[in-house]
Amino acid sequence: MLGAVYRGAHHVELCTDLAMPTVAEPGDAVVRVTRSAICGTDLHPYRGELPDFAAGTVLGHEFTGVVVEAGVAASVKPGQRVVGSDIVACGRCPMCIRGWHYQCADVTLFGYSTVVGRSLGGAQAEYVLVPHADVVLAEIPDDLTDEQALFTGDVLATGYQATLAAGMAPGDTVVVVGGGAVGLTAGLCLRVTGAGAIVIAELAAERRQAAAQLGFLSSHPDELPGLVAQLTRGAGAPVVVEAVGTDAALGLALSVAGPQATVVSVGAHHGVAFPFPTGAAFARELTVKFVVGNPIRVRDTLFRLIASGRLDPTAVVSHRLPLTDVVNGYDLFDRQEATKVVLVHG
Amino acid sequence: MLGAVYRGAHHVELCTDLAMPTVAEPGDAVVRVTRSAICGTDLHPYRGELPDFAAGTVLGHEFTGVVVEAGVAASVKPGQRVVGSDIVACGRCPMCIRGWHYQCADVTLFGYSTVVGRSLGGAQAEYVLVPHADVVLAEIPDDLTDEQALFTGDVLATGYQATLAAGMAPGDTVVVVGGGAVGLTAGLCLRVTGAGAIVIAELAAERRQAAAQLGFLSSHPDELPGLVAQLTRGAGAPVVVEAVGTDAALGLALSVAGPQATVVSVGAHHGVAFPFPTGAAFARELTVKFVVGNPIRVRDTLFRLIASGRLDPTAVVSHRLPLTDVVNGYDLFDRQEATKVVLVHG
Amino acid sequence: MLGAVYRGAHHVELCTDLAMPTVAEPGDAVVRVTRSAICGTDLHPYRGELPDFAAGTVLGHEFTGVVVEAGVAASVKPGQRVVGSDIVACGRCPMCIRGWHYQCADVTLFGYSTVVGRSLGGAQAEYVLVPHADVVLAEIPDDLTDEQALFTGDVLATGYQATLAAGMAPGDTVVVVGGGAVGLTAGLCLRVTGAGAIVIAELAAERRQAAAQLGFLSSHPDELPGLVAQLTRGAGAPVVVEAVGTDAALGLALSVAGPQATVVSVGAHHGVAFPFPTGAAFARELTVKFVVGNPIRVRDTLFRLIASGRLDPTAVVSHRLPLTDVVNGYDLFDRQEATKVVLVHG
Amino acid sequence: MLGAVYRGAHHVELCTDLAMPTVAEPGDAVVRVTRSAICGTDLHPYRGELPDFAAGTVLGHEFTGVVVEAGVAASVKPGQRVVGSDIVACGRCPMCIRGWHYQCADVTLFGYSTVVGRSLGGAQAEYVLVPHADVVLAEIPDDLTDEQALFTGDVLATGYQATLAAGMAPGDTVVVVGGGAVGLTAGLCLRVTGAGAIVIAELAAERRQAAAQLGFLSSHPDELPGLVAQLTRGAGAPVVVEAVGTDAALGLALSVAGPQATVVSVGAHHGVAFPFPTGAAFARELTVKFVVGNPIRVRDTLFRLIASGRLDPTAVVSHRLPLTDVVNGYDLFDRQEATKVVLVHG
Repeated sequence: MLGAVYRGAHHVELCTDLAMPTVAEPGDAVVRVTRSAICGTDLHPYRGELPDFAAGTVLGHEFTGVVVEAGVAASVKPGQRVVGSDIVACGRCPMCIRGWHYQCADVTLFGYSTVVGRSLGGAQAEYVLVPHADVVLAEIPDDLTDEQALFTGDVLATGYQATLAAGMAPGDTVVVVGGGAVGLTAGLCLRVTGAGAIVIAELAAERRQAAAQLGFLSSHPDELPGLVAQLTRGAGAPVVVEAVGTDAALGLALSVAGPQATVVSVGAHHGVAFPFPTGAAFARELTVKFVVGNPIRVRDTLFRLIASGRLDPTAVVSHRLPLTDVVNGYDLFDRQEATKVVLVHG
Repeated sequence: MLGAVYRGAHHVELCTDLAMPTVAEPGDAVVRVTRSAICGTDLHPYRGELPDFAAGTVLGHEFTGVVVEAGVAASVKPGQRVVGSDIVACGRCPMCIRGWHYQCADVTLFGYSTVVGRSLGGAQAEYVLVPHADVVLAEIPDDLTDEQALFTGDVLATGYQATLAAGMAPGDTVVVVGGGAVGLTAGLCLRVTGAGAIVIAELAAERRQAAAQLGFLSSHPDELPGLVAQLTRGAGAPVVVEAVGTDAALGLALSVAGPQATVVSVGAHHGVAFPFPTGAAFARELTVKFVVGNPIRVRDTLFRLIASGRLDPTAVVSHRLPLTDVVNGYDLFDRQEATKVVLVHG
Repeated sequence: MLGAVYRGAHHVELCTDLAMPTVAEPGDAVVRVTRSAICGTDLHPYRGELPDFAAGTVLGHEFTGVVVEAGVAASVKPGQRVVGSDIVACGRCPMCIRGWHYQCADVTLFGYSTVVGRSLGGAQAEYVLVPHADVVLAEIPDDLTDEQALFTGDVLATGYQATLAAGMAPGDTVVVVGGGAVGLTAGLCLRVTGAGAIVIAELAAERRQAAAQLGFLSSHPDELPGLVAQLTRGAGAPVVVEAVGTDAALGLALSVAGPQATVVSVGAHHGVAFPFPTGAAFARELTVKFVVGNPIRVRDTLFRLIASGRLDPTAVVSHRLPLTDVVNGYDLFDRQEATKVVLVHG
Repeated sequence: MLGAVYRGAHHVELCTDLAMPTVAEPGDAVVRVTRSAICGTDLHPYRGELPDFAAGTVLGHEFTGVVVEAGVAASVKPGQRVVGSDIVACGRCPMCIRGWHYQCADVTLFGYSTVVGRSLGGAQAEYVLVPHADVVLAEIPDDLTDEQALFTGDVLATGYQATLAAGMAPGDTVVVVGGGAVGLTAGLCLRVTGAGAIVIAELAAERRQAAAQLGFLSSHPDELPGLVAQLTRGAGAPVVVEAVGTDAALGLALSVAGPQATVVSVGAHHGVAFPFPTGAAFARELTVKFVVGNPIRVRDTLFRLIASGRLDPTAVVSHRLPLTDVVNGYDLFDRQEATKVVLVHG
């Protein structure tokens, strides 16, 4: 079958002879993929930032599709239209019972699993094997298209988790550091739940433009402190979402946080010694939360929200390409010419 | 001075020779009223439902104005533009420190105080005396007009309190029983914080029309159960706000509540033996909250929300009349021809 | 095999020739029961209050045991020491994902299922069939005995759920209406999480004595209002737990609730027209919550709490009888001579 | 009058001719001090760590006393027995209304105000001037002694705030880094609200002994990771309170935090570049909260808790000295021979 395989830094190959996955465990299912997406997280291996990432990995962790084979304990049936969670977890252990699926002892990620958890192929392929299918897959409601449901598997769940963690009061001025797909979906979730002014801080001019087209205020990082001071009469922002995952982004986020503010970091961090300003954090009584989106927990809520017409996640899509054009998709995304690439399968 | 005085059931008189209030306690202030409003709560005495309500009371508990005199402990200064809280409380006792101002031992209400708390004149008059002015009054931000700030003193604070108590997830289908000003402002607050479909159930056709014009679904009470079943695939609504204050309204609200639902009652109840369906409430694990709006706690948030442009409380105003036309205002309101009457003073 | 079978009002029979259960579905397991308990809920059919309760039902919904057979999707293995949840739910649907297992479309109860959900035999027998075993069963940690774990399957989970719902501040005076096993475990949970004075209101003198021996204040219902007034300087209790399930008990609970109080009802209610005092509830801004204990959600927390030595659920056991003495157990329990009866199997 | 005056590093002088304070503003009160305490915060200037701390400052921010003079807006009366809040705030601005008194534009601290806010003398003196007395002072309930109420003015409020912020589940293993008075009171508050094992990590052997005498597990910092791993089966602690205020303490706290843990920092931090491990924080989904105790908000709850007999804050007192012995008190405290020094006035 077709699939996008990681070969090393800046090298994704479209393979045509990948082995078809089959059900091995009672909880497994195999899904024929209809839509997948390229995610900002995929850029970490693409840019060679993760030396441990295994060459040969089939990439991709956001997908929709149709079940074609299901183990006896999979709780799904062939023919069902489903969306996957990027996080694979058992759903039964104490961590999962609390809703902490990313902390499951058996956690892994589609197409990313040599870095987190055991090996598991990704979904930028014609078919994908889904362990713990009863937990990982959700049936897509009839009133949603595949593309509308697609991002509940990662970026929309992540943006919504940021909103849940933020504890915002309606009307609050909110800052989002990072104008990629997570930053934009966070902005959408914050807006629909009552944010006042929403500022997206982003280096790339194209992304600032995309943010503006979605109705957000946008700002170059250098101008952010001044803008926030103006919007909040010098107080600082009560809620800041950091959606990049670098020390620089977190530093910027903390610098514009006001009294009793909550700074939510949903960027995937790998740092070991970010220079944290404890004195300022104490003086302002800040809360800093590092959160990982959890599709398993929140997608049912997101289904209702999308179906109600209040939030349209497809608004962040900049490119739709056939799966066969995946190599080009990575290149566009890497050069930040794309905000979000959806791959249309089959 | 001019003022609207309660004389008995269906009898409000515009008096012209009321005594001017003056500062008596260090915490007092006197405010020249610029706007006041007639509230659904005012209809209880107007319709003769409160036999203890004292004839001779100056009516009115929503107001904006300008401080003209201030005691040494009032924390406001002559010339400041202010909005009042309908609730008058000390702000210092343990109840107030927790934010439970309505439970303050010294609580009273403007123009309603013979029923709740000690005697205090209302604000449908040229001037009003404000005890505990440092707690009861808030300066109106420069970016808000008087009319935009007016309802933070009661109906908007009440609608928002319903939203706070509801604990809604975004996208939830929400039912509001009662299409008066509180019901409509609750709807506005629920919408801006993420509600999906919002249904306003209301007997009066004019009010259903007003609800529809604000973008809400509207329903005759008799048709509500069917509509809710359709919107929630038979489950029932996860959030129901009861904004009337009668047994019938509460019964309707409970009847459409779904599993683990929260029913928030913001209507002013006076009942003693509502026939509560405990078996159904247990089977569905319902929560029922009786809440009183608290302008003192929430108006600062509401100021920001209004200033952000996300919520326009003036959208619920159906009539603007001069104070001299107050008698007519009560009549319009009583006949449900008016949703909300604002009195323009001076 | 041996088992306690419901024959009708006041008639439980110890049968000796019940059919052994076997695994039928992939998610099923069969457990050899080591301990079961008689619960206050069992008295409803015993006293003939539930006309729909099917004669022939094997009773009992609290149990520990050892897995003897497991389906391929059961996630447990023969030989594992386990405790069951009284609630049987699928664990995968949107209701279960939110932690609302009692609202699962497939919900049922062991030994009670002709009233709630589909038919399922109880655990006052040598063996019990467990559907959805991956969800319903939990392995008992090595540092807990079977009896220590037993009540996490119902009464302790229920008492703890009351505590979670109560939202108590430490030092609060708390009232528990009902001195049965749920009331007492609620008292234990409230105490360990910070309650100040804890008053158990109970009609039966033996149970008031049991409450006193556990260190609680106890009160005859008639004397409760006076005692609460004295303890709270007339204010009323900030938290009241109603653990009986009758209109009278709920009425008493509401009557002693203070300003902004939360009244948590964990008694199983079947009423249709409890005369609810809406006026007083509005004046005091009460919250009333009907909650069902959920062992699946909370037992892991309870395991840690028991293992820490901070809470000993076995303190509520008044009688330990062999399974063969189950008929006597029901009789003792019905006459309120027993607070909690544990049946020792095999 | 008598009072302890800061002269510079390691130099506190007992002055005998300080000017008596008098009421200047309507909200002022003057209190004759009956008890004061030396706090860990006082060691920062004592050890010369705060170059901006003004020589000549009367020290001390925890106190009880009797009102001797009160301004017209002070809301207290001569003769009342009161306890002060270390934080002085207006109580009326939007920050205070939200309960964020430390973020009040007019915030200051008794005896510390040259570092935070405007100049204000401390309470290690015969009399102390109290601005915003209606907010800062609370009447001590009749059932509490002065010493029982004393610590609600700072260290107990701080320990309790840590508990509120921790969001602990009952039975959780909790780590407190720092065995001073704040660490110990945090431990007491955590215990009374349901913590399982509580480990106090502390360098000083005397303080570890004090912790052990209060019933806590104690650990040298070097042995903490091993102990926590053992208590939590390798998972890490779900709640860690950092009660020191140094980079080393915060680093230790983060190192023992488990999945989804909350790390609460109540130590007064002055750092600018703590090397924060963002990768580990993201992988474990940590929350880090910097919180300042707020006596104004919580002391009423603490009064009830102490009166209920569930918590005894005087258990952390190691030394009681006359005010005239204050210089010795600082010396004992600096050498960590004292856990908490209470000064008995007059």
